[in-house]
Amino acid sequence: MILILKNGATDDQIDHVVTRVEAMGLKSHLSRGTFRTIVGLIGDESTLNQEVLNAIPGVSQVIPVLPPYKLASREAHPESSVIDVSGVKIGGGNLGMIAGPCSVEDRDRMFRIAESVCESGANIFRGGAYKPRTSPYAFQGLGEAGLKLLREVGDKFGIPVVTEITDPRNVELVAEYADMLQVGARNMQNFVLLTEVGKTQRPVLLKRGMSATIADLLMSAEYVLSQGNPDVVLCERGIKSFDPSTRNLFDVAAVPVVQGLTHLPIIVDPSHATGRPDLIPACSLAGLAAGADGVHIEVHDCPEEAKSDGPQALLPEQYKDIAHRMQLMADLLGKTISPRPGATSRSLNPPPTEALA
Amino acid sequence: MILILKNGATDDQIDHVVTRVEAMGLKSHLSRGTFRTIVGLIGDESTLNQEVLNAIPGVSQVIPVLPPYKLASREAHPESSVIDVSGVKIGGGNLGMIAGPCSVEDRDRMFRIAESVCESGANIFRGGAYKPRTSPYAFQGLGEAGLKLLREVGDKFGIPVVTEITDPRNVELVAEYADMLQVGARNMQNFVLLTEVGKTQRPVLLKRGMSATIADLLMSAEYVLSQGNPDVVLCERGIKSFDPSTRNLFDVAAVPVVQGLTHLPIIVDPSHATGRPDLIPACSLAGLAAGADGVHIEVHDCPEEAKSDGPQALLPEQYKDIAHRMQLMADLLGKTISPRPGATSRSLNPPPTEALA
Amino acid sequence: MILILKNGATDDQIDHVVTRVEAMGLKSHLSRGTFRTIVGLIGDESTLNQEVLNAIPGVSQVIPVLPPYKLASREAHPESSVIDVSGVKIGGGNLGMIAGPCSVEDRDRMFRIAESVCESGANIFRGGAYKPRTSPYAFQGLGEAGLKLLREVGDKFGIPVVTEITDPRNVELVAEYADMLQVGARNMQNFVLLTEVGKTQRPVLLKRGMSATIADLLMSAEYVLSQGNPDVVLCERGIKSFDPSTRNLFDVAAVPVVQGLTHLPIIVDPSHATGRPDLIPACSLAGLAAGADGVHIEVHDCPEEAKSDGPQALLPEQYKDIAHRMQLMADLLGKTISPRPGATSRSLNPPPTEALA
Amino acid sequence: MILILKNGATDDQIDHVVTRVEAMGLKSHLSRGTFRTIVGLIGDESTLNQEVLNAIPGVSQVIPVLPPYKLASREAHPESSVIDVSGVKIGGGNLGMIAGPCSVEDRDRMFRIAESVCESGANIFRGGAYKPRTSPYAFQGLGEAGLKLLREVGDKFGIPVVTEITDPRNVELVAEYADMLQVGARNMQNFVLLTEVGKTQRPVLLKRGMSATIADLLMSAEYVLSQGNPDVVLCERGIKSFDPSTRNLFDVAAVPVVQGLTHLPIIVDPSHATGRPDLIPACSLAGLAAGADGVHIEVHDCPEEAKSDGPQALLPEQYKDIAHRMQLMADLLGKTISPRPGATSRSLNPPPTEALA
Repeated sequence: MILILKNGATDDQIDHVVTRVEAMGLKSHLSRGTFRTIVGLIGDESTLNQEVLNAIPGVSQVIPVLPPYKLASREAHPESSVIDVSGVKIGGGNLGMIAGPCSVEDRDRMFRIAESVCESGANIFRGGAYKPRTSPYAFQGLGEAGLKLLREVGDKFGIPVVTEITDPRNVELVAEYADMLQVGARNMQNFVLLTEVGKTQRPVLLKRGMSATIADLLMSAEYVLSQGNPDVVLCERGIKSFDPSTRNLFDVAAVPVVQGLTHLPIIVDPSHATGRPDLIPACSLAGLAAGADGVHIEVHDCPEEAKSDGPQALLPEQYKDIAHRMQLMADLLGKTISPRPGATSRSLNPPPTEALA
Repeated sequence: MILILKNGATDDQIDHVVTRVEAMGLKSHLSRGTFRTIVGLIGDESTLNQEVLNAIPGVSQVIPVLPPYKLASREAHPESSVIDVSGVKIGGGNLGMIAGPCSVEDRDRMFRIAESVCESGANIFRGGAYKPRTSPYAFQGLGEAGLKLLREVGDKFGIPVVTEITDPRNVELVAEYADMLQVGARNMQNFVLLTEVGKTQRPVLLKRGMSATIADLLMSAEYVLSQGNPDVVLCERGIKSFDPSTRNLFDVAAVPVVQGLTHLPIIVDPSHATGRPDLIPACSLAGLAAGADGVHIEVHDCPEEAKSDGPQALLPEQYKDIAHRMQLMADLLGKTISPRPGATSRSLNPPPTEALA
Repeated sequence: MILILKNGATDDQIDHVVTRVEAMGLKSHLSRGTFRTIVGLIGDESTLNQEVLNAIPGVSQVIPVLPPYKLASREAHPESSVIDVSGVKIGGGNLGMIAGPCSVEDRDRMFRIAESVCESGANIFRGGAYKPRTSPYAFQGLGEAGLKLLREVGDKFGIPVVTEITDPRNVELVAEYADMLQVGARNMQNFVLLTEVGKTQRPVLLKRGMSATIADLLMSAEYVLSQGNPDVVLCERGIKSFDPSTRNLFDVAAVPVVQGLTHLPIIVDPSHATGRPDLIPACSLAGLAAGADGVHIEVHDCPEEAKSDGPQALLPEQYKDIAHRMQLMADLLGKTISPRPGATSRSLNPPPTEALA
Repeated sequence: MILILKNGATDDQIDHVVTRVEAMGLKSHLSRGTFRTIVGLIGDESTLNQEVLNAIPGVSQVIPVLPPYKLASREAHPESSVIDVSGVKIGGGNLGMIAGPCSVEDRDRMFRIAESVCESGANIFRGGAYKPRTSPYAFQGLGEAGLKLLREVGDKFGIPVVTEITDPRNVELVAEYADMLQVGARNMQNFVLLTEVGKTQRPVLLKRGMSATIADLLMSAEYVLSQGNPDVVLCERGIKSFDPSTRNLFDVAAVPVVQGLTHLPIIVDPSHATGRPDLIPACSLAGLAAGADGVHIEVHDCPEEAKSDGPQALLPEQYKDIAHRMQLMADLLGKTISPRPGATSRSLNPPPTEALA
């Protein structure tokens, strides 16, 4: 780290800073400028607390030079990680295509939607059994019955399933049924939940909070990694902004930013990022073009009957269309959409000369 | 609610909307304008789901006319609630003065800080035993040992204590030791935790999330209220913004906005809102002038040794000074700072002619 | 418009509202709900002022149902506009590829950069002669000498040139030299400047302000259109956000949102949106994939000698690489990059089977 | 400044950095840490361009240690400036109380409103003759006729007048009539306008842009100061945020932040900051309590007839009430509201024991 001292820091303050730094086991390197004195710290700063340094009298600014997420950082692990979700690869050129309804609902509907998105090329099926709803009066999910249904769908269609986990007391239960555990945006800094999820061996889909910086997101991934679970897929799903045109603001630049900082894959979720089905196709393609390792889209066959988030879901036929266009984009980008394990063949390879328009 | 149909909605779509609305037990009132048709819903809309209405084909916008937080809303409960925290009143003209270190630390320090803030006029003591830290490598709190220390301080100085709860599995344990349970900003939409806290009979200090609208905050309060716990104190502690001058953006206007919408009290926390001790005095006075029902300030006697958030803490003598000025402000505003229950007398009444400058 | 009256609006207030509305030449349609009365306005509301309606006692909310930008709206003009910039088409499937240095600098450099971006396939050349700088001490541009240099480059390479206009007193002068006039983000709501630019017959490149909603952007376009100049190209170049990872936040979803609301073309500017050259390729491709009508990129052959914005410029060889990839993307999307008028042939058509990776 | 080099910067790059820095007339001080090399610059860095340094290959971050606004900074001018607006002092304990309608409208109305706010204690009268409106179809102001009316009001009531300037071609004209020139939020970075205004000898009221950081605001003030006009009063009037509860977000902490960084006074404008008359009293008092050097409030005697911004104006009797409470607050804070020059006596001194509630 680098400490910039206050204009007018006294010699006593400078001495005190040096004493404190050396007591932490580091060497200091003083540089007296015309207006400010700067103290460079030399040694292993990985155990230092920036806050403590910032509270030393006379210190004006503390500038870290290494990222605080040691396990997640690309400096520590230069090669891109490929996460295996029960046979479906995400990262390193492999695209995860996650699709399904917001909530797990009745059995027939689940099977209908699953059949359709599997045919369209999705390789992971989603559905919420425990729903974090802003209103205590809204549908809260089917709970364990929903998990069972989801597992049944996964087994029948040979497709891994992902579902949200909201309660540290349920982690074991959910991990029994699901192939991948989702930590939702509102729980991105629920450190108790992250710690529990980090103790499982299930891959984790970690969604970016609506007011989380990218550094915050990577620190939350670090929580999971530091518990021994190396399989984290990040997800950009929109952040807060002042323009009401879209529900959230889709931060597509987060994709290359994240990929520069970490070896973990990152996918995009245009359904939650925009909240508008008419924007999902454009934003899905934009996400892939920016380098995303996958796309998460909500699909429902009768949005006006959906138990949650109906207005933002695509219809199955709309998903089929955009899935086809995403395949064309993947081909252009030299990326692979691994088939779901239960798929006997792959029928979606489009002719390379076909245009998207 | 009011439904605004899309430009060019067909007669069939309009009929379908009316059919759906009536199936929900409401009457509809059609108004065909030059460009748009509007459907007003007449009847008890409290059970309606805005999302479902929005997903009906042909519907462009759904405009609620009643707040979705029924128990928290001032329409339902016009008089301001006064929350009693083990003898200290907050709301309805009574100010809560919460002070203490970020984390519970060693015993001597706790006693020193508590003695000082009690003398200065604080009426609730704070300290974290379970700390939600962005880094998994940072100090995570003393846990139950911290709760015991906090209780000891509370008993010794006759001052109620508040501490943060982060895990639904700990709610019972924490409620045994603390007079008030804090739900932190990062957990404001941890609905599992809100539900558990709502099942206790301890007053709750609910902090606004960094990207929560005021409506979101009130919906989170509704979670607690709907479980049967009526004692919620809200807290404005800064929201996300683009200006790095302060850690968060102190939304002082939230105070009168919230007071217009709900009967629950709202306090301000300039420590977290700004992250800068030099701004705490100005923002504390501003919060009171805006009508806040109390002020939450972090105090530490040696910030550079603090286990968390040291740089933003006030020194005990700084707290003494601002506490005195807050008392003068309270007098001007006709508000009361109830003494802590253990205080034998009140020595802080300043001469009314003294100026703050 | 629709007026939602306050809960408890009196009959007198309702009568007064109706009287006021009818005095404005509209019919009103009352709908009394259980809790609120709603007044729908029937007739030509294009001349109404929402503010005036909102100030009538008893009115709680005014909800417009038509966009206030009449000339810019797609409702008024369903077909996408194609803007002709001295022979280069933008919109309706035609892509504008704008490239060049931030500021016009010395003659040799201008020619070197222009030659290179022309070879790479750019079809409009950019360079600032009047620079809006945040510091009064920074380089403010070469002024008219810069305009002359820009014209010389345009003539020599047969490429239209665009340059920023910052002063209403200079509009005529700049319009003499430039093929297209840029209104920068900081001047997006400089209505005096918009009005002057609207009086010229030069196409306008209107950049979105850093805190402008999409509705604000379209209202600013309306200023230009309402003066008689129909040729406006919009540009998304990043808005304010809380994450310091990028200079601004690239709002890629703005592209399809804008295209839904207006017939005017919209291009993206990843140079200003991100401020980071390493992100420009990913964001350029994302912009095109989202449907943008062009891409604006800053290019400089020696960023450390650039008189402004050096750190965000691409090197000519980096531009060549991304221009090639943008051509492949255009082919996939079925879009056309019209060659610059002075180009004798087009050599950039890549083989369709080549992948971007 | 301090340059942090990239991890893995080569010796050649380091040498090149040192050579460049020394060519700029500064000494460099190298500090090689375990992971990064840091270069401290020693000498007069006031003429350096941060951008240029940032574009040198191998440089990762440039950290300035001095503010770039030399004339505006408190380091350069430790004592608070007191600005004299035709006899009314703002700053250094003196409060400016600016009140009046959004737009200058008809003569009778102007006189009525002016009489009332003068009686209530306002010491500067406001009114817009040139209105920057988001819609080209909205009322654009009375122009010179409005300026004349404003002057007439100022002379009649012995109160200085402030009005907005939007066009560099009008600066001389407006300066003839007005005592103070307002640069509005949307023009805060209209550097052409700032430069023209800086050439006059009229005090300037510079409003913070909706997406301007405090550093941006001070750089805009620097534009005016650097032209030779030392009389700038800053104004916090709300910034963009994600919560629609208020029109903008009132950043009350900006008051002490600004006062720490500059000697220039800063006032608050709760009318524009919140857009809601019901919040103006609370936010006015909060602004004063935070240390503001004045309060700007819009007042209109018939908001539903106002030509602009009617819904956010206070009625004259509401202004009278809040003006009285602001006087009590000023007394508590030891601040002075200088009477308008034309006032023969001062009748508003309230009894010190009276409470605000």
